[in-house]
Amino acid sequence: MNVYSLTVRDHVMIAHSFQGQIFGPAQRLHGATYVIDATFSREELDADGLVVDIGLARERLRAVLATWDYRNLDEVAAFQGRNTTTEFLAREVFDRLVEEIRSGGLGEHGRGITRVAVSLKESHLAWATYEGSV
Amino acid sequence: MNVYSLTVRDHVMIAHSFQGQIFGPAQRLHGATYVIDATFSREELDADGLVVDIGLARERLRAVLATWDYRNLDEVAAFQGRNTTTEFLAREVFDRLVEEIRSGGLGEHGRGITRVAVSLKESHLAWATYEGSV
Amino acid sequence: MNVYSLTVRDHVMIAHSFQGQIFGPAQRLHGATYVIDATFSREELDADGLVVDIGLARERLRAVLATWDYRNLDEVAAFQGRNTTTEFLAREVFDRLVEEIRSGGLGEHGRGITRVAVSLKESHLAWATYEGSV
Amino acid sequence: MNVYSLTVRDHVMIAHSFQGQIFGPAQRLHGATYVIDATFSREELDADGLVVDIGLARERLRAVLATWDYRNLDEVAAFQGRNTTTEFLAREVFDRLVEEIRSGGLGEHGRGITRVAVSLKESHLAWATYEGSV
Amino acid sequence: MNVYSLTVRDHVMIAHSFQGQIFGPAQRLHGATYVIDATFSREELDADGLVVDIGLARERLRAVLATWDYRNLDEVAAFQGRNTTTEFLAREVFDRLVEEIRSGGLGEHGRGITRVAVSLKESHLAWATYEGSV
Amino acid sequence: MNVYSLTVRDHVMIAHSFQGQIFGPAQRLHGATYVIDATFSREELDADGLVVDIGLARERLRAVLATWDYRNLDEVAAFQGRNTTTEFLAREVFDRLVEEIRSGGLGEHGRGITRVAVSLKESHLAWATYEGSV
Repeated sequence: MNVYSLTVRDHVMIAHSFQGQIFGPAQRLHGATYVIDATFSREELDADGLVVDIGLARERLRAVLATWDYRNLDEVAAFQGRNTTTEFLAREVFDRLVEEIRSGGLGEHGRGITRVAVSLKESHLAWATYEGSV
Repeated sequence: MNVYSLTVRDHVMIAHSFQGQIFGPAQRLHGATYVIDATFSREELDADGLVVDIGLARERLRAVLATWDYRNLDEVAAFQGRNTTTEFLAREVFDRLVEEIRSGGLGEHGRGITRVAVSLKESHLAWATYEGSV
Repeated sequence: MNVYSLTVRDHVMIAHSFQGQIFGPAQRLHGATYVIDATFSREELDADGLVVDIGLARERLRAVLATWDYRNLDEVAAFQGRNTTTEFLAREVFDRLVEEIRSGGLGEHGRGITRVAVSLKESHLAWATYEGSV
Repeated sequence: MNVYSLTVRDHVMIAHSFQGQIFGPAQRLHGATYVIDATFSREELDADGLVVDIGLARERLRAVLATWDYRNLDEVAAFQGRNTTTEFLAREVFDRLVEEIRSGGLGEHGRGITRVAVSLKESHLAWATYEGSV
Repeated sequence: MNVYSLTVRDHVMIAHSFQGQIFGPAQRLHGATYVIDATFSREELDADGLVVDIGLARERLRAVLATWDYRNLDEVAAFQGRNTTTEFLAREVFDRLVEEIRSGGLGEHGRGITRVAVSLKESHLAWATYEGSV
Repeated sequence: MNVYSLTVRDHVMIAHSFQGQIFGPAQRLHGATYVIDATFSREELDADGLVVDIGLARERLRAVLATWDYRNLDEVAAFQGRNTTTEFLAREVFDRLVEEIRSGGLGEHGRGITRVAVSLKESHLAWATYEGSV
């Protein structure tokens, strides 16, 4: 399969804690800067020669992230009873971007996006990704 | 599928402008430094234990990029009537590297390369990729 | 001397050309993505424990850069007859940020900034800096 | 296919030399810092919301790399008669991490990992990857 | 002045909140991954040809950071009534590393270090530094 | 003091070993990729609006590094009896670049350079710098 993709980067600064002995010191309330790369893919470019309107891509990614930014994820209703691990959060951003694509949030041409990948860097030494079909 | 890949990096500094309201201020003549990563993949290494002769890979990538480097892409004949977006240019480099592979430009062993991916970083916040089979 | 500093990053995408044989192919109209780091320094933090209000720092840096962004610098009136080299542009951003500090654009506390450094990365392989006193 | 992945980074500093004219000056004894990214993938998270216990992932990657670190690879028994190219070494790390997964070295939950990718950066300009199924 | 320096990198993941309207949304409990670079400088190398024993430098930096890592800085006794801004924390690490140097924590040769700089990256877009004499 | 600077990046891949118990496993023959940044500084730009001819800067830095590249530094005559630590090598590159400046290797205008800094990254976690006057 041949495929075009476009990636935009943003970041959030959040607090959270984890439940379970496997998390060791990360069971305590701590935090992270997540540098987030959202990648949109499709087999053919749209009529403007684009994967997606990069302005819309940035704007909708920001809108998704704004609900978490500068917050304690332990207090976010949607995350109650869940460990907000890096891989879990990657999936969350993925799900919301897929909703944006389906609802036209990335424009009419954006409906042609067939796959999305979301990567969250928690440090220069570790990151997680969720990738799937729209 | 199991696969080996090798990536080499180069860059170009170009001017261009875009046609279409969707491009906003990028309709004006502006420019970019594109940091370009070319990735060559295959399922088995060649007799020297290589994906490709890295010296040849660098040389041919440079030859491909030299036709654009320090130029206004609006004046490049092959691009007339096209928006030279980051994703479009990724495909252009891909197509030329595939030609190199087929014509032996990456050496006899280089003919064993089965996939190529080309990524162009336009900034620390955005990049595009084209990936496909040879 | 002991000193605190704070750095914020932004970028611009511009076209330009240079006059003079020393510039070789860069005499042709080409372009660059400049990744710009502005560093503000002072010996003591302000009453809020800050070098400068980071929100204001980003906003004023953006305002300075907006006059160039997505433009051909050869057509900017203030640059007529000058080679807009990376080092020249670093000085330009420096001068404008110093004006911002003096005019209160970085807030009343921002007047305590004593030195500024501006770095422009033209690629992953080369960058220039101008640093001086306010 | 939808997939989660987690990546951890480590590095080694080794000496080696290559056999074969294609390697040019790299036939001489020289060396490299390899920055190594190991990526573990699976379709569903484990009961803790993880791809893999990140602490175990780091520990086992370190154990694999420790057998090479600060050594001359030309003297490593397992590599006799082989060119320890970047792509060859990526495969070696891959094979050992797959063994770890199968033997439970990445924990019981770690047995759910279905794919592994190993990338070795030899410089800011070149890297190699080996990716495959467990 | 001519000077040698050596830098080592580590990181912490912390939660905190700020007091004061100037901080906007950062008044809420949030968090950060701080990537921390500690730079040690001196005019002449020691008898081993070193600025400092890099193993000791890493170990003592880790010991300093361990008191914060995976914690909510709002609950750290030493920080009560202070805004733990990036620039404030850079100074804190600086002060502790200077104590280490003076107390011999960086070895007898380490006493020859004359300046220290500590940089904390809060994201790919912003960082702070404190630099001073020992 | 107000100052302009320009930095260019290159790299070498070398083998070496160290003498002295303080070096632990690095007493064994091992190696490194050194990513090298050479920074040239002056108070006023030359007649072309430059700190230094960037083409000459790259060429002379490459010439300096070529004497080490793809070599075992333990066999370099000039380094006999010395530990080729990262900080020691930074000074070596500095000394050779200062010679280049004085001998006109960086051009007539290059004689106006007043300070040089040389940084060698041995990994993503550690680097050394030597900085001084010409």
